[in-house]
Amino acid sequence: MVYDLIIVGGGPAGITAGIYGARYKLKILMITKDFGGQIAKKAVPIENYPGFKEISGQDLIQKFKDHLDKFEIDIEMDSVVKIGKNEIFSVLTKNGKKFESKSVIIASGSDPRPLKVPGEKEFLGKGVSYCPTCDAPLFKGRTVAIIGGGNAGFEAAIALSRWAKKIYILEYGEKVVADIENQELAQKTVKVEIINNAALKEIKGQKFVESNIYQDRKTGQDKELKVEGVFVEIGSQPASAFAKDLVEFNERGEIKVDFETFQTKTLGLFAAGDVNVGKYKQIVTAAGEGAKAALAAAEYLRNLK
Amino acid sequence: MVYDLIIVGGGPAGITAGIYGARYKLKILMITKDFGGQIAKKAVPIENYPGFKEISGQDLIQKFKDHLDKFEIDIEMDSVVKIGKNEIFSVLTKNGKKFESKSVIIASGSDPRPLKVPGEKEFLGKGVSYCPTCDAPLFKGRTVAIIGGGNAGFEAAIALSRWAKKIYILEYGEKVVADIENQELAQKTVKVEIINNAALKEIKGQKFVESNIYQDRKTGQDKELKVEGVFVEIGSQPASAFAKDLVEFNERGEIKVDFETFQTKTLGLFAAGDVNVGKYKQIVTAAGEGAKAALAAAEYLRNLK
Repeated sequence: MVYDLIIVGGGPAGITAGIYGARYKLKILMITKDFGGQIAKKAVPIENYPGFKEISGQDLIQKFKDHLDKFEIDIEMDSVVKIGKNEIFSVLTKNGKKFESKSVIIASGSDPRPLKVPGEKEFLGKGVSYCPTCDAPLFKGRTVAIIGGGNAGFEAAIALSRWAKKIYILEYGEKVVADIENQELAQKTVKVEIINNAALKEIKGQKFVESNIYQDRKTGQDKELKVEGVFVEIGSQPASAFAKDLVEFNERGEIKVDFETFQTKTLGLFAAGDVNVGKYKQIVTAAGEGAKAALAAAEYLRNLK
Repeated sequence: MVYDLIIVGGGPAGITAGIYGARYKLKILMITKDFGGQIAKKAVPIENYPGFKEISGQDLIQKFKDHLDKFEIDIEMDSVVKIGKNEIFSVLTKNGKKFESKSVIIASGSDPRPLKVPGEKEFLGKGVSYCPTCDAPLFKGRTVAIIGGGNAGFEAAIALSRWAKKIYILEYGEKVVADIENQELAQKTVKVEIINNAALKEIKGQKFVESNIYQDRKTGQDKELKVEGVFVEIGSQPASAFAKDLVEFNERGEIKVDFETFQTKTLGLFAAGDVNVGKYKQIVTAAGEGAKAALAAAEYLRNLK
């Protein structure tokens, strides 16, 4: 069978696209490896999705999922490895399945960006983590370093402060760039020390992480910091490679779109949420983009007939 | 005092801009004549704001308002009549007050578009209504006409079907354009009759509405329809005239914006939600735009310093 719409991804953008598409009675398949993506793993409560003053990422994504479940949508728990287009789109998955559709919305979000320093891969799960929520309790009474002084880094620090004894935030630039509110919350924990101009070079240890080496970018000197955990929070990279034959990327691998319809350079192919080039990446902006992309897809389908 | 940000309007776009701006510790004034605008008056439950499977317009807007109330924002219950800019923006209100700000987000939404036919003004509140939710119970056991066969017209019909005996939907075009879901719901009431190609010419009566005259656009013939109520649902017009010195409009009076930042042609002046030229006008898209505009305003303010 040929679907009207395949949605790749089950975060806020994908789920909202599903809700909107289903209301237009489109025959929809969602392909996703999980629901909620980064949100389900959020370390701190979400306070900026309008309508919910404060809610955990898990609870919010459950509400999104419950909302989606009102509608009849096929769901395939899998990852997409390639999208092609002849007259219609064909979507190949990691498990070797192939699906066909008249239109596609890519809402596959983004994954944590790795540091690419020695020791990072070696100590993954042995002190190195990309997920403060998942791993914070493992660091009870310990000293950890967070790499990255943006909002994600500070949110990680706030979450970790319940468990860790001492938290360093290593910021590559001259000063941290997190929201003032996050900075204030982190300072209140009195466990957080910020080290600016720090370029991480290596993560060291025996079986587990024991220290990291960073260069002080002001003096050029290498310094060693004794830590038992390293949380990497230097941003994310879009999960977009599978679309490379049909879209244009910017230098970060984000998909170029028209910002009104979220259509890519290929007609009938849309990209909403973190995966596209938009500079503002929030839950509510992803949801809004998912709605717009679904409405634009419905319009595209009407014009096909 | 000079505010960092004045937000004009208290609907989903304005409230979301307030939440985001406040999280950046901006000093904010919101000027609005009410909260929720068109949503608070919605005739049918809202089923497409992600996270709430089904919620009344009143309840959803109350949740938005409660969320906003977490933050310290000044609120002025008033309408804006003019925005000017020298070095900073000056905002004049209907009650004669003047406020100053470094940036402004226009999120003033839109008002119902009038038919401009004889009898419409005369019988307003005497059978003519722009608000099905407000007025439906007044038409218990009566026959009414809804002018406009879009989603708003069908939603009005669904809401009115609880009360009215018989409901005509007069559509100007050759066929109605509402979502299939709304059309199906209206048909289920077995009270709704659709008249296509109908151009309303006049609303007639003594003290109250007694009939309306429409031209059948196929035959050119005038026809009289006995009705006791006329609900006007032919779309809306943006509440944007007060910004005319600083923005460009399209032919419908909607404000032209950059779709990534929602900035108008004037630096520091943004327009989010129904008031701008965006083609998709939904609660979640308005909220997403409000967030983007606030983040862009915060960036603008940082660059001012």
